[in-house]
Amino acid sequence: MRTRYKTHRCAEIEPSMQRQEVTIAGWVHQIRDLGGKKFIIVRDGSGLIQVTISKNEASPELLEVVKELTLESVIKVHGKVRADPRAPRGVEITPSTIEILNLAKKPLPLDVSGKVSADLDTRLRERVLDLRRREMQAVVKIMDTALRVIRDYLRSQGFVEVFTPKIIAAATEGGANLFPVIYFGREAFLAQSPQLYKELLAASLERVFEIGPAWRAEESDTPYHLSEFISVDIEAAFMDYNDVMKILENVVYEVIKTVKEENAEELSILNYEPPTVSLPLPRITYGEAIEMLQKRGLAVPYGEDLGTPELRVLSSIISSPLYFVIDFPTKLRPFYTKPKDETPEISESFDLVWKHLELASGSSRVHKKDMLIRALKERGLNPESFEFFVRWFDYGMPPHAGWGLGLSRFMLMLTGRSSVKEVTLFPRDKKRLVP
Amino acid sequence: MRTRYKTHRCAEIEPSMQRQEVTIAGWVHQIRDLGGKKFIIVRDGSGLIQVTISKNEASPELLEVVKELTLESVIKVHGKVRADPRAPRGVEITPSTIEILNLAKKPLPLDVSGKVSADLDTRLRERVLDLRRREMQAVVKIMDTALRVIRDYLRSQGFVEVFTPKIIAAATEGGANLFPVIYFGREAFLAQSPQLYKELLAASLERVFEIGPAWRAEESDTPYHLSEFISVDIEAAFMDYNDVMKILENVVYEVIKTVKEENAEELSILNYEPPTVSLPLPRITYGEAIEMLQKRGLAVPYGEDLGTPELRVLSSIISSPLYFVIDFPTKLRPFYTKPKDETPEISESFDLVWKHLELASGSSRVHKKDMLIRALKERGLNPESFEFFVRWFDYGMPPHAGWGLGLSRFMLMLTGRSSVKEVTLFPRDKKRLVP
Repeated sequence: MRTRYKTHRCAEIEPSMQRQEVTIAGWVHQIRDLGGKKFIIVRDGSGLIQVTISKNEASPELLEVVKELTLESVIKVHGKVRADPRAPRGVEITPSTIEILNLAKKPLPLDVSGKVSADLDTRLRERVLDLRRREMQAVVKIMDTALRVIRDYLRSQGFVEVFTPKIIAAATEGGANLFPVIYFGREAFLAQSPQLYKELLAASLERVFEIGPAWRAEESDTPYHLSEFISVDIEAAFMDYNDVMKILENVVYEVIKTVKEENAEELSILNYEPPTVSLPLPRITYGEAIEMLQKRGLAVPYGEDLGTPELRVLSSIISSPLYFVIDFPTKLRPFYTKPKDETPEISESFDLVWKHLELASGSSRVHKKDMLIRALKERGLNPESFEFFVRWFDYGMPPHAGWGLGLSRFMLMLTGRSSVKEVTLFPRDKKRLVP
Repeated sequence: MRTRYKTHRCAEIEPSMQRQEVTIAGWVHQIRDLGGKKFIIVRDGSGLIQVTISKNEASPELLEVVKELTLESVIKVHGKVRADPRAPRGVEITPSTIEILNLAKKPLPLDVSGKVSADLDTRLRERVLDLRRREMQAVVKIMDTALRVIRDYLRSQGFVEVFTPKIIAAATEGGANLFPVIYFGREAFLAQSPQLYKELLAASLERVFEIGPAWRAEESDTPYHLSEFISVDIEAAFMDYNDVMKILENVVYEVIKTVKEENAEELSILNYEPPTVSLPLPRITYGEAIEMLQKRGLAVPYGEDLGTPELRVLSSIISSPLYFVIDFPTKLRPFYTKPKDETPEISESFDLVWKHLELASGSSRVHKKDMLIRALKERGLNPESFEFFVRWFDYGMPPHAGWGLGLSRFMLMLTGRSSVKEVTLFPRDKKRLVP
């Protein structure tokens, strides 16, 4: 779209536009002085373009403006496109005027051009500048592709997009780690997952998905946890855990394929290649996983959850970069998880694992009321506190299944970054509430 | 996708599949007994299909199962497709087996088939059943189309999808109507809009959009307010309010066009036709609007906001069903709104109006630090409380603009429903925290 600030975005300027008059606007990404020439690299959301000023040929007014420029100042440049094989992407702009829209103070609290590195704490404090770095712009573009492909794929399978309530009256999965909200003088909580509501929606709409925030009051500071995170959730009636695993692996496959096709430039900026996967992904039962670990000498007894160290070893054994661990002991999983009909101590459940990380978690769900009440009681939960949920099991609760995928962990796999805080625009943790 | 519960969804069964063996699963929507025949209408997320049992031809076992059936029970039907012009959509299934997956209790607390109407309070209390009504399934499908078209259009204009933090340290627009959150023992708040964060992201990524929840502690109970609502937001650097109005009217136009094309069936279920609009939408200045209202005898002085009664009269005068009111007095708008350069008492602002409702609101934003600090002070706000926002104006804040569109009000225009509570899956208001 042509606006009064620009006729083109930086990345749209191409050698084939030779001699065309254009207006661009963006941030001063770099300034270089090479004797008779000044090179200004201008950046906008689309990418970079070089603006070249010959000191001999430029007007005194233009040279005066150029002298004033500081890094990250906001400028509008009007000029002619010039194809030049020496310029980045083979094209540059010869400016007739440069207008300073907002001059940036110097020095900057963070280097945007990428020459000086900073630790993650500094980067998150100076986040608005940090997000201007090419690596972070690449991360954001890959996330944009992932979100689009996830939704497109789920829609192609008959899922509709929903929004579940985020302020809830009761804890969905027990009660720990909840953030209290003062709701018109009453105590309420922030949803730690859309779990129970998405189940109710599957009981009404059959196939639903949601991409939205969820909250857990995580006390510990790790590269894999946030207090506020984006959860990608699906829930489907008339499916079991095998069906929704198939949907999940298709989603993962489609996203990786599309990112490799459409974000080759961003991946090269990040110097990273997402894993190559072939479908179906391996399915290893929890029991097999425990045996494999014990054979490697790990003292992990059957019945204990698989943590980071266990998953790290498991992933070193399994040849696929992504795989499912399935059939967890029922008591390791939340009350809504369906036990297997023949062996109820084992559940129809799964985790999607990459390296040492659980990316997603899912299961078939309980759909019979008596079984649900028993499951609640077995976990020391009071069925009466879950009445808003339990009562619908009287009125046509279908067999159903679903999963939740942590967007930021998924992004680690897609971008090779090392902390979920890095791939979250403004992360929230125990010590971080601004910016 | 073929699962163990179904080979097809109900709406996929067509007359051309004559004699094909199929398995479907869904809810018992209706049961009719016509002498020698029983008709069971089965519903899933895709639509309805008729299952016809001839009492003469069916096995005693099948007849026994059919006798047991209650409305909204969950069943799996295996049988043969039969084209029959007398059946709805000209097709039905002759079942060989019917399996009851979950029997529903009777009577139901709400009629799903649509014969008995209920008031909105009852419907919201019995929401899981209410969402099974064909009208609500139609609403959800139209919302799904709207969300898809909004994102596709914005992506086509170079916008990337973002998520801003929902737990924030300070009030964005003053402080009233906030829900407090207890954040690791500290007081924090739920974001009443992504406003300041989307501005910071426009200063990093140039063009961003977000579709996510926002919260306002609305004391009053009206058909147009919710405590928790979904806000569609964009923010773009190097654009002014004229540019983002163009984007907004294009979004509205594309959504209406696509809904009419793809959701004709849903619109017919709702017995509603969204308004026909032609672009550009009329732009009426606030000053002109006041004059028009005064000519009609309304005692609305210049400088006062336009409320529901004023908009109702205004919309009766203006020929277009949707229009912009622009150039509001600066002091009527939030501190981040940019005053006009020549007449700073008037701002570069707009509302999108449909009938008596403001659907969206937007403006050019202040991008100069001194002007921002002045604007905060003029509204009695302390610039120091906004330091997390203000400090970035030193480091390359571009001129920028944006808008926020309330999804549920937009849905009223698209579906002809009369309350935002009806078009929100699980609405939250002062008295409603469950389901």
